[in-house]
Amino acid sequence: MTGCKKAIEQNEIPVCAIVVDENNSIVSKAINRTKMDVLGHAEIRAIKKAAKKLKSRYLYNCKIYVNLEPCIMCAFACVLSRISEIVYVLRDQKFGGVYSLYQIPIDIRLNHRIIVRKASYFEEEFKELLRKFFKNSNL
Amino acid sequence: MTGCKKAIEQNEIPVCAIVVDENNSIVSKAINRTKMDVLGHAEIRAIKKAAKKLKSRYLYNCKIYVNLEPCIMCAFACVLSRISEIVYVLRDQKFGGVYSLYQIPIDIRLNHRIIVRKASYFEEEFKELLRKFFKNSNL
Repeated sequence: MTGCKKAIEQNEIPVCAIVVDENNSIVSKAINRTKMDVLGHAEIRAIKKAAKKLKSRYLYNCKIYVNLEPCIMCAFACVLSRISEIVYVLRDQKFGGVYSLYQIPIDIRLNHRIIVRKASYFEEEFKELLRKFFKNSNL
Repeated sequence: MTGCKKAIEQNEIPVCAIVVDENNSIVSKAINRTKMDVLGHAEIRAIKKAAKKLKSRYLYNCKIYVNLEPCIMCAFACVLSRISEIVYVLRDQKFGGVYSLYQIPIDIRLNHRIIVRKASYFEEEFKELLRKFFKNSNL
């Protein structure tokens, strides 16, 4: 929630991702930064930070929490990073790559599969933040 | 070709991407850098460099040339960046996101479509470079 509010203060889409390790300790957090870089999604940024912090190419046994369903790019970034679980709150009918448009993390043709879970933490609050943001922006 | 050889010298997978503008002038070039960062694909790096150079979030009317079919992540990165055309040489049965596993750039549910073209420039040479690289690596 705090991350999303921080994103809004910076006029960024209120999306925030958190990577946690197998003990549920936070490894990294990142907000969306797409104002200048359309590829600066929160998940990609959190994954890169986590890999750097853990000094590891792969994030085995790590989970990623995000308030909006990862897009197709981020869904495959999670596969490439060997993340073990994705937990998201709101579905994304426009770009969703883990449920809405594609189900990339469970594609048996790929060399890594990810557990995907839809959660409902702060669901109404996140919905409202996104609704307000897009109402006030021209994105 | 030069980019791919440079990648090999640095013990990186020989993949090289080039973004050109509507006049076919080179805007950016990038090689794969996945040794330390599994998300450091050539296409993503070339797109980010091009956007920075053109001081634009979007790469309308730009084409991307790459010797290996873009993966799922890179295919959607091209959609997000509004690239107009993807030209690739070798198919990627393992991760290919523009033909082999998914056809993301032509998905009519998305808000941008991309022309995808398979070319055959240096096809045998690229195949040989990749074959040799994977024979000598443990990736």
